[in-house]
Amino acid sequence: MRVEPGPQRSVEAVTAEDLQSRYHQVRQQSTALCEPLAVEDFGVQPMDDASPPKWHLAHTAWFFETFILKQQVPEYQPFHPQFEYLFNSYYNGVGQPYPRPSRGFLSRPTVAQILEYRAHVDEHMNTLLEGDLTDEVAAQLVLGLHHEQQHQELMLTDIKYNFGHNPLYPAYCDRRPAEVAVAADAVTYSQYTGGIVEIGALAGFSFDNETPRHPVLLQGFELADRVVTNGEYLSFMEDQGYARAELWLSEGWAEVQAQGWQAPLYWQQRDGVWFEYRLDGCHELDLHCPVTHVSGHEAFAFAQWAGARLPTEFEWEHAAGSTAVDGHFVEAQYFHPQPAANTPGVQQLYGDVWQWTASSYAPYPGYRPLPGALGEYNGKFMSSQLVLRGASCATPRSHARASYRNFFYPPDRWQFTGIRLAKDVE
Amino acid sequence: MRVEPGPQRSVEAVTAEDLQSRYHQVRQQSTALCEPLAVEDFGVQPMDDASPPKWHLAHTAWFFETFILKQQVPEYQPFHPQFEYLFNSYYNGVGQPYPRPSRGFLSRPTVAQILEYRAHVDEHMNTLLEGDLTDEVAAQLVLGLHHEQQHQELMLTDIKYNFGHNPLYPAYCDRRPAEVAVAADAVTYSQYTGGIVEIGALAGFSFDNETPRHPVLLQGFELADRVVTNGEYLSFMEDQGYARAELWLSEGWAEVQAQGWQAPLYWQQRDGVWFEYRLDGCHELDLHCPVTHVSGHEAFAFAQWAGARLPTEFEWEHAAGSTAVDGHFVEAQYFHPQPAANTPGVQQLYGDVWQWTASSYAPYPGYRPLPGALGEYNGKFMSSQLVLRGASCATPRSHARASYRNFFYPPDRWQFTGIRLAKDVE
Amino acid sequence: MRVEPGPQRSVEAVTAEDLQSRYHQVRQQSTALCEPLAVEDFGVQPMDDASPPKWHLAHTAWFFETFILKQQVPEYQPFHPQFEYLFNSYYNGVGQPYPRPSRGFLSRPTVAQILEYRAHVDEHMNTLLEGDLTDEVAAQLVLGLHHEQQHQELMLTDIKYNFGHNPLYPAYCDRRPAEVAVAADAVTYSQYTGGIVEIGALAGFSFDNETPRHPVLLQGFELADRVVTNGEYLSFMEDQGYARAELWLSEGWAEVQAQGWQAPLYWQQRDGVWFEYRLDGCHELDLHCPVTHVSGHEAFAFAQWAGARLPTEFEWEHAAGSTAVDGHFVEAQYFHPQPAANTPGVQQLYGDVWQWTASSYAPYPGYRPLPGALGEYNGKFMSSQLVLRGASCATPRSHARASYRNFFYPPDRWQFTGIRLAKDVE
Amino acid sequence: MRVEPGPQRSVEAVTAEDLQSRYHQVRQQSTALCEPLAVEDFGVQPMDDASPPKWHLAHTAWFFETFILKQQVPEYQPFHPQFEYLFNSYYNGVGQPYPRPSRGFLSRPTVAQILEYRAHVDEHMNTLLEGDLTDEVAAQLVLGLHHEQQHQELMLTDIKYNFGHNPLYPAYCDRRPAEVAVAADAVTYSQYTGGIVEIGALAGFSFDNETPRHPVLLQGFELADRVVTNGEYLSFMEDQGYARAELWLSEGWAEVQAQGWQAPLYWQQRDGVWFEYRLDGCHELDLHCPVTHVSGHEAFAFAQWAGARLPTEFEWEHAAGSTAVDGHFVEAQYFHPQPAANTPGVQQLYGDVWQWTASSYAPYPGYRPLPGALGEYNGKFMSSQLVLRGASCATPRSHARASYRNFFYPPDRWQFTGIRLAKDVE
Repeated sequence: MRVEPGPQRSVEAVTAEDLQSRYHQVRQQSTALCEPLAVEDFGVQPMDDASPPKWHLAHTAWFFETFILKQQVPEYQPFHPQFEYLFNSYYNGVGQPYPRPSRGFLSRPTVAQILEYRAHVDEHMNTLLEGDLTDEVAAQLVLGLHHEQQHQELMLTDIKYNFGHNPLYPAYCDRRPAEVAVAADAVTYSQYTGGIVEIGALAGFSFDNETPRHPVLLQGFELADRVVTNGEYLSFMEDQGYARAELWLSEGWAEVQAQGWQAPLYWQQRDGVWFEYRLDGCHELDLHCPVTHVSGHEAFAFAQWAGARLPTEFEWEHAAGSTAVDGHFVEAQYFHPQPAANTPGVQQLYGDVWQWTASSYAPYPGYRPLPGALGEYNGKFMSSQLVLRGASCATPRSHARASYRNFFYPPDRWQFTGIRLAKDVE
Repeated sequence: MRVEPGPQRSVEAVTAEDLQSRYHQVRQQSTALCEPLAVEDFGVQPMDDASPPKWHLAHTAWFFETFILKQQVPEYQPFHPQFEYLFNSYYNGVGQPYPRPSRGFLSRPTVAQILEYRAHVDEHMNTLLEGDLTDEVAAQLVLGLHHEQQHQELMLTDIKYNFGHNPLYPAYCDRRPAEVAVAADAVTYSQYTGGIVEIGALAGFSFDNETPRHPVLLQGFELADRVVTNGEYLSFMEDQGYARAELWLSEGWAEVQAQGWQAPLYWQQRDGVWFEYRLDGCHELDLHCPVTHVSGHEAFAFAQWAGARLPTEFEWEHAAGSTAVDGHFVEAQYFHPQPAANTPGVQQLYGDVWQWTASSYAPYPGYRPLPGALGEYNGKFMSSQLVLRGASCATPRSHARASYRNFFYPPDRWQFTGIRLAKDVE
Repeated sequence: MRVEPGPQRSVEAVTAEDLQSRYHQVRQQSTALCEPLAVEDFGVQPMDDASPPKWHLAHTAWFFETFILKQQVPEYQPFHPQFEYLFNSYYNGVGQPYPRPSRGFLSRPTVAQILEYRAHVDEHMNTLLEGDLTDEVAAQLVLGLHHEQQHQELMLTDIKYNFGHNPLYPAYCDRRPAEVAVAADAVTYSQYTGGIVEIGALAGFSFDNETPRHPVLLQGFELADRVVTNGEYLSFMEDQGYARAELWLSEGWAEVQAQGWQAPLYWQQRDGVWFEYRLDGCHELDLHCPVTHVSGHEAFAFAQWAGARLPTEFEWEHAAGSTAVDGHFVEAQYFHPQPAANTPGVQQLYGDVWQWTASSYAPYPGYRPLPGALGEYNGKFMSSQLVLRGASCATPRSHARASYRNFFYPPDRWQFTGIRLAKDVE
Repeated sequence: MRVEPGPQRSVEAVTAEDLQSRYHQVRQQSTALCEPLAVEDFGVQPMDDASPPKWHLAHTAWFFETFILKQQVPEYQPFHPQFEYLFNSYYNGVGQPYPRPSRGFLSRPTVAQILEYRAHVDEHMNTLLEGDLTDEVAAQLVLGLHHEQQHQELMLTDIKYNFGHNPLYPAYCDRRPAEVAVAADAVTYSQYTGGIVEIGALAGFSFDNETPRHPVLLQGFELADRVVTNGEYLSFMEDQGYARAELWLSEGWAEVQAQGWQAPLYWQQRDGVWFEYRLDGCHELDLHCPVTHVSGHEAFAFAQWAGARLPTEFEWEHAAGSTAVDGHFVEAQYFHPQPAANTPGVQQLYGDVWQWTASSYAPYPGYRPLPGALGEYNGKFMSSQLVLRGASCATPRSHARASYRNFFYPPDRWQFTGIRLAKDVE
């Protein structure tokens, strides 16, 4: 997923109080996530894809200012004339955005100024929220909140990228023991019969890329009951997984050579022992935890090695359809995926790690982006990317749903991405 | 499509004489296509993706030597010990290939030596063909012939890339007037109802990526009766198509900026008049001919501008299902796409130009690559590419079929690629 | 100049009190220069060559820790085990340095921690300074102070690069009117006869690259009495200086094309009026001020255009020999070069701008770098660079002298670099 | 040296017959050197700096056509209107040159057409040569011949680069045993006292960069009596020369890391034995032959290791002043440097290998390039390059002289470059 969420289609029945409360809660959560940061941590952009935390804070305010306040409040004075430019992510319809790879060069505005910017926007938004909102504005506001939740997750993964590449390995949070420490059994699979199933957004909020809901023809398949563990991934590595061209897609093999991949991001070997940098610091690798920070290419190669394949996004959604949205979300404050419970049936669908699918990110039949600049939210990224399903340990619980389509490029590794296997029914 | 064709699955009932005759015909056609070339033209690699003609000639011999002669003829002596390395395209299972971008640096072996290599391989293949072939060897031989046909088309497009970037603009062939010179009417669409349709390889030869044949659920759609013309594309350009970010995918827009795209490859404006380099030389743009040498990104943007979309590969195959494989193939010796005849119904499915689809190149449900190194033929390229359907003016007629899946990256422009529009049935 | 100053050769007669006082003064000046900065400004690295201010603060402490405290104080405990690695600039003899282009990714250690690091080093240095110092240690200490002065200048130019590329154009200091606002007369030249002259370090501190003092044979020459002004440079631009290949060295012309140079760094045209970003903010171009932030290639092209040439470093040093070290140094707190006074004779030798010479940076006959890792200070950079002479408005006055050799690559523009012309005596 | 020679200054007294004969001889030699080539070898450009042989053949004709025929023969018809563009190397004054890195893409014009081009130019030049030539035209003609001799040497080194990187390692010539096979004694040095010496062009042809002759002040020095051998260089390698940062200039060390240098170009180790590709094929390393194809950085590091330094170009020229121009030139047809004879005194000044000096390529005091486009010949390359002195086994004997200044970038290795050591007189 490039950066942020897409326009809402379906109208939810929400009260004004509800909106005010959600607005307050989501906005407050963004700054709460930054509490462990030093001022210096807010400005760093350690790679082009990872934005500085303060940029996330400003951009999410920019979203409300640009798409709601400037449109709905005639007398609204923008906080600063240059912010429209500086904090535009990729909306060409709004103007030329400031170059993405240079976000880390903006020592100004300072963190304090950005917090003032947020307060300025909040003040005007609160006034607006006290009045009557049209359905359209209410929808845009809800979109803005989901947008901000997406950036909350990105902020955590971008902070992790920064800390995880600093030789001092600072910790973002205190260590908490893993929830379940018993050994994982060999993975089991659940079977699903084929047929025509309905895929896509149900009632409630969704991004435009989840629409329209439409029928899809599935063949019978099996889905792994849990995601792949570090221990299983280590077996792949010990079986020369990174040295066997036949397991990899051609592009993936080229990445292995070019990047020198030998292990997931954040793994390092010291004196023969594997360690993993996590948001709670550098620790010896926990073999029962889900493997995370693997690229789509690594997910594919692992599946080849395991004699399985990745599920399609439709198989995943069909399997998830009847399952409660439960798991280790950001609210659990682990900030790291947790081992599966040894209970029967499909688990770990949500929380822990996003799950790479075999599906290219493409429009659903009849898909229409929102009109105007908000139409750039999702649709224009529908090339060369893969869909990921589920949610991660950095996702807000209220942000997860069965029809959610996350998307990243096959070589991307800095998100909490993991692997769930699938198989054909022979 | 990276470079060459994939393993055969279904066995055809062919006689030994038939095989001998087809072997002779296909092999002879490769050298016949090189007759207009000077010795100097055989060695040039004007970009990484375009191989020198003599490399194509050698690699297609290498294919028979590596996968048939070395396996089937115990006493076979390879023509040269280094050729296994030099003319391996990308089969890691056979050994490390010579670096692709350096193919143009191989002034040796000379053209004459490569023709000797081909004669050496032909001699041993002819001996083999006079004996009894197992079904497996017959299948590999047919695969080798389709492989060679793919390279015949690549050889033409690579020659065109070379000549079309030389300031002297040499012609490969004589000019022939376009077949139909009358103005094209506005494009019409044929309607198709939705439902479950069968997609994939029928009896006869196919590559592994066309298998297995399987059911696909389509929604109702409309397909344009002909491909887009130069005149229509020029209207898109005159309407600022290359300057309007909202028409493009994000990756496409980035290419427009990075490459400075302003028109299809091989178009140039001189004193306000548009010219097109074609294999028969530089000529004023023929507005009735199909637009060609457009990338998948340009095809997408044009469709957006036209209020339409690209068809999926399944829509295309379903529409093509009942149509005869007819059109302007390489045998017509135009070496350039021809205007559509003004007849009712879908036309130009085959010949003229490959047609970009909206479909990512992905495995069909239950897809299994061939075992061994031949399994690298198609499967490992199933990421980040789009499927193209049909065939072009550079394709041998016997190489085209409804289930054929060609594949290239969205920015690729040097093949004879064009645009057919589709629409939802509202 | 890559980053920092070189080993001292000649021993100065300095008292212990003098050393203590100078140590205190220089160290204090580094932090004083940072007073206008927000915490956020300390960490930014807006290009590979420009280091974050906090890195400069840490590295200058590292220098004393590494080359003096660790050697001279047996019980010395390094402040942090990783700092030897993080704040090593380029001394391979001390260990592998942290990658230069990644200095801006180090959000940790924080500014506060780096100030603690400095205090820790100062505390131990002060103890050392209270004892008897050998001549060698005294020399290293003086070297460390000159080293820190070099970094003070770099800190200012790096801050300028950061602020000058931020669309908000923050000012580092308040504006002060230019010292002399009268129009500059046409430039005059002073004549020098040729002969054998002595070049190189005299008594007092010098870097190793200024030694040994040795005879050089000069031919008669003329040297411009002041440096080139913005007004003169603007004439060059208006005469198509950036579009005339014949004025440029081949490498310079390639840079013009590749970088799109149209004016000095920090100049921008708005509605036909030229503005210049200076450390006191963006202001309309002052035509009487010296042109600055031009590359060596621009200096060469300007001289060609003006029918003159750049002086050699020996001509410059010979001309400067008898002149007092006076001018607008950092202590003047202009932080920008000032117009020349209209007085007769050579002026602006020191302060204002460094002056590009025609001389490649090369060892003097008999040059010997210091032994050990300190030998990496200057000698290993003697390729592909040009010598600059003088000093700039960002140089401490006590850091300037006639024999000083500054050095940068011909395309570098971010230092306070300017142009002084010379001519042959016909 | 970028590509070709510079304008003549001093007029030689040459007869018309002499000019005709020299013109014929030099022009004929260019094609004679191509006799061992297959047509395919004429077109390859295996790296940006190495041009295809046929390009050299065309460009040297272009030089006479552009600078003499078009100026002197009013009715002259250029052979082809596009050749002015295609075969312009870097003379911006004549028009925009065809991009250098794309020379290898020009399969047309063919070799035969380029030979026709040469014949066309020769025919008109011969007519011109039969008439009376002004001194200026005679000077330009002589310049054109020296220009062509420079390209003859480049043609050989470019062919070697092509063949030496082809896995088939074709030989350009037959093998001849090395001239002297006895072991080299340890190197001895000749001493020179310092003082003012005259440097630069004497009577006879010279390029403009050798002028004006002028006095230079030297300090006493020692010069090695012969160039460094493969055996000596191997000792440097075995002493970890490529792994010791302290021996290298900073830029050189960066090249070692980036390029993975472990040995001179064309050396390769097979089963513990060192081989060298030479124009007579791949042979086991001859320890007595001069080391060649080393960069200026390697020359510097070797000298550091050997406790010596590289000579300045002035030291070299002074030492060479009284020595006959003798050695193994291209006429000897070794095409490889030969061992030194064990005779006393300085030898191997000319022929065998060009010798890197410590001197940056810079204008002599009072240097003036020729007027017009010919002024681009040498002067504009005077940045970032080093001077090499002497001549190589690929240089025509009549092209060598004491004042000759060859120039290449410090990392360049594809010329016949070697090492002669020097020392200070302590």
